[in-house]
Amino acid sequence: MSFNHNKYRPFAPIKLADRQWPSRTIDIAPDWCSVDLRDGNQALIKPMSVEQKLVMFKLLVEVGFKQIEVGFPAASQPDFDFVRCLIEQDLIPEDVTIQVLTQAREALIARSYESLRGARRAIVHVYNSTSTVQREQVFKQDRDAIKRIATQGARWVQQYAAQQPETQWQFQYSPESFTGTELDYAVEVCNAVIDIWQPSVEQPCIINLPATVEVASPNVYADQIEWFCRHVDSRDAIIVSLHTHNDRGCGVAAAELGVMAGADRIEGTLLGNGERTGNMDIVTMAMNLYSQGVDPTLNFSDMKRIIEVVEYCTEIPVHPRHPYAGELVFTAFSGSHQDAIKKCLDLRQDDTDEAAWEVAYLPIDPADVGCSYEAVIRVNSQSGKGGVAHLLAADHGINLPRWAQVDFSPIVQAYAETQGGEVDSSTVLALFRQHYQLDRELQSEQYQISSYQIEHGEHDTVAITLSNGNNEAIIKATADGVLASFVQGLSRFSGHTIDINNYVEHAIEGGSDARAIAFVQLCIEGSEIIGAAEDGDIVTASLTAVLAAFNRRQNSNIKATA
Amino acid sequence: MSFNHNKYRPFAPIKLADRQWPSRTIDIAPDWCSVDLRDGNQALIKPMSVEQKLVMFKLLVEVGFKQIEVGFPAASQPDFDFVRCLIEQDLIPEDVTIQVLTQAREALIARSYESLRGARRAIVHVYNSTSTVQREQVFKQDRDAIKRIATQGARWVQQYAAQQPETQWQFQYSPESFTGTELDYAVEVCNAVIDIWQPSVEQPCIINLPATVEVASPNVYADQIEWFCRHVDSRDAIIVSLHTHNDRGCGVAAAELGVMAGADRIEGTLLGNGERTGNMDIVTMAMNLYSQGVDPTLNFSDMKRIIEVVEYCTEIPVHPRHPYAGELVFTAFSGSHQDAIKKCLDLRQDDTDEAAWEVAYLPIDPADVGCSYEAVIRVNSQSGKGGVAHLLAADHGINLPRWAQVDFSPIVQAYAETQGGEVDSSTVLALFRQHYQLDRELQSEQYQISSYQIEHGEHDTVAITLSNGNNEAIIKATADGVLASFVQGLSRFSGHTIDINNYVEHAIEGGSDARAIAFVQLCIEGSEIIGAAEDGDIVTASLTAVLAAFNRRQNSNIKATA
Repeated sequence: MSFNHNKYRPFAPIKLADRQWPSRTIDIAPDWCSVDLRDGNQALIKPMSVEQKLVMFKLLVEVGFKQIEVGFPAASQPDFDFVRCLIEQDLIPEDVTIQVLTQAREALIARSYESLRGARRAIVHVYNSTSTVQREQVFKQDRDAIKRIATQGARWVQQYAAQQPETQWQFQYSPESFTGTELDYAVEVCNAVIDIWQPSVEQPCIINLPATVEVASPNVYADQIEWFCRHVDSRDAIIVSLHTHNDRGCGVAAAELGVMAGADRIEGTLLGNGERTGNMDIVTMAMNLYSQGVDPTLNFSDMKRIIEVVEYCTEIPVHPRHPYAGELVFTAFSGSHQDAIKKCLDLRQDDTDEAAWEVAYLPIDPADVGCSYEAVIRVNSQSGKGGVAHLLAADHGINLPRWAQVDFSPIVQAYAETQGGEVDSSTVLALFRQHYQLDRELQSEQYQISSYQIEHGEHDTVAITLSNGNNEAIIKATADGVLASFVQGLSRFSGHTIDINNYVEHAIEGGSDARAIAFVQLCIEGSEIIGAAEDGDIVTASLTAVLAAFNRRQNSNIKATA
Repeated sequence: MSFNHNKYRPFAPIKLADRQWPSRTIDIAPDWCSVDLRDGNQALIKPMSVEQKLVMFKLLVEVGFKQIEVGFPAASQPDFDFVRCLIEQDLIPEDVTIQVLTQAREALIARSYESLRGARRAIVHVYNSTSTVQREQVFKQDRDAIKRIATQGARWVQQYAAQQPETQWQFQYSPESFTGTELDYAVEVCNAVIDIWQPSVEQPCIINLPATVEVASPNVYADQIEWFCRHVDSRDAIIVSLHTHNDRGCGVAAAELGVMAGADRIEGTLLGNGERTGNMDIVTMAMNLYSQGVDPTLNFSDMKRIIEVVEYCTEIPVHPRHPYAGELVFTAFSGSHQDAIKKCLDLRQDDTDEAAWEVAYLPIDPADVGCSYEAVIRVNSQSGKGGVAHLLAADHGINLPRWAQVDFSPIVQAYAETQGGEVDSSTVLALFRQHYQLDRELQSEQYQISSYQIEHGEHDTVAITLSNGNNEAIIKATADGVLASFVQGLSRFSGHTIDINNYVEHAIEGGSDARAIAFVQLCIEGSEIIGAAEDGDIVTASLTAVLAAFNRRQNSNIKATA
């Protein structure tokens, strides 16, 4: 029986009775360091070419990263070549610091410094594995021996730096697999490294605490970080950095809770690329801050381009449900969601852009990341009147009144149920025009308006000539208002009781020439029926809408008796 | 300037000074309820057909779900038809309860009960929106009016249930958009519903608290849940259920922390399908519990089939980095990761399967979810000796000794750097055979063994006939051991100092006929050189490996002088 939970041991909770992090909030963005070009690159079936790395580097700079880990130059010739290319072609902006990763071995450290020769500024990131599993099973060495690997590495890093004084160096140490390391031992090793580097408030070193593998729930990671920050030496001379992975699907949560627990800096990748389940996704974490009114210090307004570059470099598509970036994440299919979104967006149009964002089902304004409102609402069989109305309004400038939405949306839903998939906006329009016979494919029995005359005095008198090809009829009536007159005349003409329940007319927005669309709801012999018509003239549109409702009723009578 | 964080307000923290949840762990699985067929289905460009819904329903039952929300039958004809199909064709196992969702409107509640006629048992899940945004912008009603929608809905649910006494009913209420609702008001509305339903410990109702939109970090959701659980009436007569979404990428974390905060039940979908960024992924949360030694009560051992069904029903591919399920999540490309994994797996082979799982970089045993170890390690230019050695061992039964790994892996890395992408296992083998000249494409000057005689007495005497086509040579020598004798003879024959540094030979595992492979590391005039050879006879393989090393050295001399 291979599916057996007894094979696993629970992660031991951290003893931290007076933890402070759960009461904290994140009010400023951490320092960000992109590891797309190292950790992300190491995770690809096909690692990036130097050309791809350059495209990614440029994007990272544009987005606003000030620290970019560009490779593991001692382990791979393309990484080495890429670092040289950045330096020799002077591609690193003044305010950007590159970082390289190396194991704590002299040959690798020497080679790393060789790759960095001539850099204005750089972070040398040295690591060794400190977890129990790594000590016992991989390195087969005890705590002291593993600590010596770290301290010896720290010394080499310092010594080789001294040989290239033209570069401004910052040192970074990671106790790799920190989350699997006993906390007291992690502090002991980091303190030993700090003791060698002797950082100061002015020249701090970076201590990076990786969740190399995510092994517990994110609150446990936060406990580890808070414990570490309380016990490590020279807390104000070190920058505590986090590097989380997503094995339990909680990489972003762990980083957020870890920042609440005291960390200053976050390593991660764009859209979470990285070994196995990937790294912490900086897009998500930064946009989470943004959505809380915190300046993320990174600019993700051109999300489309970010996605394009990430997909080009990783050759892995972004998932349609990826937070803030997936093609479906600002889309609502369900009727009640669409309805609520439409109401909130309609209200918002009256506000200035300065008003706080409060729209049901949309945590941020899609426009912020380059998505248009039009993409928000898509229609299928799960959709209701809100979605249909939104598409007609957003894409075709037609504002369906609520009573017409109720009449028309079942037509779209029935079509969607038959057809199975999404109903696009042009199909919704086609169904709309067909349902309300806007294109005048009239039954031969049906009348249209040939001409009319209106006299407006104390009352309104209309004389409307109708024809259906065979016959002509002149409807004459006087009442208060043109429509009332016409309806009165139609009543007499047809012998039916006809009233106007509802009427609305508006100019069609965005059309190439000025046209109006009129909706009218008649009550003919107690039954409600809607007519719609469009025309360049507002009066013609209105009268035609009334006639359309009348015709539709005649038509359904004809069908009913046929 | 559309990218402007000032448009957003931070979520106000919950006042909960003495929160208990951060010190808790999850020791038993919550009740699971799948909402794949409702919430998941409502999120699809192309909603599932009845056929697809049936396939999904069967999978959910097989995986072990005991509660399955099957649709919103009052809102959609296919949902209605599907519920009827389940009941009329008796497809619901005895121990499975179906659930349907309805808004708190009488016509929809009536229609929902109609769909459930004849069901053995069912949960009727009624909801209305309670958040400030929904109250103020969508419904434009005050707190009391919104509460009345809930209580009126609760009464209808009760009244219609009474009319179908043949079914065993359970009631569920959701204050939809709970996370955007003032906590005291959420409790007030739920208490009003509870007061109508009068649940008991024996017949509890379900109160479901949706993060309809994820609006804050997961610790805030946990605070909300703990606060709610402390203040709601009849806590032991209600089942507190959570329904989280993933807008901030923390849907799983929120559900986990929410269970620590007191919830009993989790709604979610397989692999996180759902509106926008999707629902809480039950696969991830259940496997997280599993990896901590907690029985998840769901069986995900056939992950491949789960992925197939989800992709068939949703028509959305599972991301390669999806926790526990993506095709890359048990794969290591980086050299140091591969090395560590190989060492841990090697150690583990000596253990029984009962031993606790402790393997670097692999949070769970891939075999548990139907992945083979072979898929774990893949080789590209970022890989080192561990990965290369693993592929040769796992796929080709060849155990490269460490000193041969150091010799051979740069060959693979150089090839990968030239070629750019992944190097598959058969290419690694081909490079290996070529590098060590296993297929005897010998230089014309090089010798091979024609025949040999061995006499074993106090010492060992060998007489080995070599030929290179043109010439024949007989190597004769006596020493302690056959290899030592052969090397002594080769020394004399060539005039070079030759020693044996290392030697290993093993039967090739999994080959169709029994063959052995020998590796020998000679030291010729102070330079180390490795030879390898395979043969059906172990002595021939060993001698040939020695000769191969000798030949490779001669060959490099020839090249060097050419």
